[in-house]
Amino acid sequence: MRITLDDVRSAAARLDGVANRTPVVTSRTLDESTGATVFVKAECFQRGGAFKFRGAYNKIASLPDDVRARGVLAYSSGNHAQAVALAARLLGTSATILMPEDAPAAKVDATRGYGAEIITYDRWTENREEIGSGLAGERGVELVRPYDDPLVMAGQGTTALELLDDVPDLDVLVAPVGGGGLIAGCATAATALRPAIRVVGVEPAAGDDTRRSLAAGERIHIDVPQTIADGLQTTAPGELTFDVNRRLLADVVTVTDEEIVDAMTFLFDRLKLVAEPSGAVAVAALLTGAVSAPCARVGVVISGGNVGAQRFAALTAGREP
Amino acid sequence: MRITLDDVRSAAARLDGVANRTPVVTSRTLDESTGATVFVKAECFQRGGAFKFRGAYNKIASLPDDVRARGVLAYSSGNHAQAVALAARLLGTSATILMPEDAPAAKVDATRGYGAEIITYDRWTENREEIGSGLAGERGVELVRPYDDPLVMAGQGTTALELLDDVPDLDVLVAPVGGGGLIAGCATAATALRPAIRVVGVEPAAGDDTRRSLAAGERIHIDVPQTIADGLQTTAPGELTFDVNRRLLADVVTVTDEEIVDAMTFLFDRLKLVAEPSGAVAVAALLTGAVSAPCARVGVVISGGNVGAQRFAALTAGREP
Repeated sequence: MRITLDDVRSAAARLDGVANRTPVVTSRTLDESTGATVFVKAECFQRGGAFKFRGAYNKIASLPDDVRARGVLAYSSGNHAQAVALAARLLGTSATILMPEDAPAAKVDATRGYGAEIITYDRWTENREEIGSGLAGERGVELVRPYDDPLVMAGQGTTALELLDDVPDLDVLVAPVGGGGLIAGCATAATALRPAIRVVGVEPAAGDDTRRSLAAGERIHIDVPQTIADGLQTTAPGELTFDVNRRLLADVVTVTDEEIVDAMTFLFDRLKLVAEPSGAVAVAALLTGAVSAPCARVGVVISGGNVGAQRFAALTAGREP
Repeated sequence: MRITLDDVRSAAARLDGVANRTPVVTSRTLDESTGATVFVKAECFQRGGAFKFRGAYNKIASLPDDVRARGVLAYSSGNHAQAVALAARLLGTSATILMPEDAPAAKVDATRGYGAEIITYDRWTENREEIGSGLAGERGVELVRPYDDPLVMAGQGTTALELLDDVPDLDVLVAPVGGGGLIAGCATAATALRPAIRVVGVEPAAGDDTRRSLAAGERIHIDVPQTIADGLQTTAPGELTFDVNRRLLADVVTVTDEEIVDAMTFLFDRLKLVAEPSGAVAVAALLTGAVSAPCARVGVVISGGNVGAQRFAALTAGREP
């Protein structure tokens, strides 16, 4: 079940002409602030506003025609929901998305806007995985997991494949860690292409399940983390992603919510980039020195930009300009 | 004194490898919202955060060596100041910038950060043009005007040259109008390359000096406009820019401050782009229908992204998501 560079390359072939090849942004100010030469892979410009489209599309495109035709299902209140809905539409099949009934209206609308059917559940009394598996079985549709799937991981890995194609001589690659699919795919591609590269993951301080799991040598479960990084509120690493990440990651570091907001503000003010809280953690780790790489060539992934202007304003209110 | 496509091409040669070739961004949501196929030239990613670098660099690079060596001077509290300071530094000369003593500290710091000497004046009792000309004469340095200069106009025109190189078959080009340098340069390039193109300018409703001047057939002076579009608070078109724009513009339309904030919010939420108020007026005109071009291929310039996170939050607070 371990993925290889070839799996990532196959994903890239499927995504060619469908996913955006997102820009790599550089900034003298960011270099001066970090002491490194930094290359920002801006997945905020990916379709659906986040890297999630890569994995969702790769998974759904890889299904046998008859399976795909029956439709797909995902449980997510965030970027994975929109990614699955969009990928399903592009591939001519139907998507059912299970969302908590208190999900933000904007996210529900965006997902419905891609043509998905939305089913809500009570997040306090019901278990989404049980409902999701039950519904998928009942309807005979394929469940698209957010990270613990080799095809999803391979799709996310195309982020690093593109970045290393643009900037082959990176010393360090830094990316956010939620369930671990993005960094597992990226680490698979990056370490295969460039064995000396150090791949470092970043988690919110309150949600360091992967950092703890790596320290313990086994998957550790934590309570639902209280953090503004809503895409990184996982309670445990994925089984498949952890198996990759324990082998390939050099380190996992953490940043606080305050540091995340500082990074979002920095990216807005200096690079004119919109990063959602989860999307900004890797840049935050560079700015705080949690990842220190003096004089190195550092690739860093902004994983998504799905933060509304209202929420951005509320988060950054009162911060120093 | 009229500029030609050749002048714009010469500017492009000077800027090659120095200015950023900014991306052209497309968005299905923007197309659906406007009924057109829209190509956004994102000058928020230009060096210094706005198109102004193009004109300033072209001007300073074109000075005879001995003149340039004595230094340059500009009066501006905004993007032109940063552009002149940055261009001067890159070209190995000194810049003096005359700024109102109540200019925002962030802009003063940014300009000083590029190595410029800042001289302040009292904007309520002193005339910046008199002080500027006086100082320039006294110090024997060259004054770099913000728009009423053929080399500045030609530099700004490279924005359209690049856009039409990427998207040759545009039907309409929409750009902000302050002093008129950006649109004069762009109209010169665009109408020469594509005679059938309609070039439309956009002003803030409170500051429609160019619209009024075109209607009157002569340059009309207005009071300092009260608008959030601080880069477009000109009181009259430039002499040289008006001479170009009266010949080449198909129309000038206006948008309100509220419509500008709506456009800034739309760009943030949907395209993940940071536009300052002045930078968003052309997109605002498309979204409101002030520029209506059903089924047309429309190029639109976001002229800059220099709005701090704090000001963005304050402007967009209370708007619908």
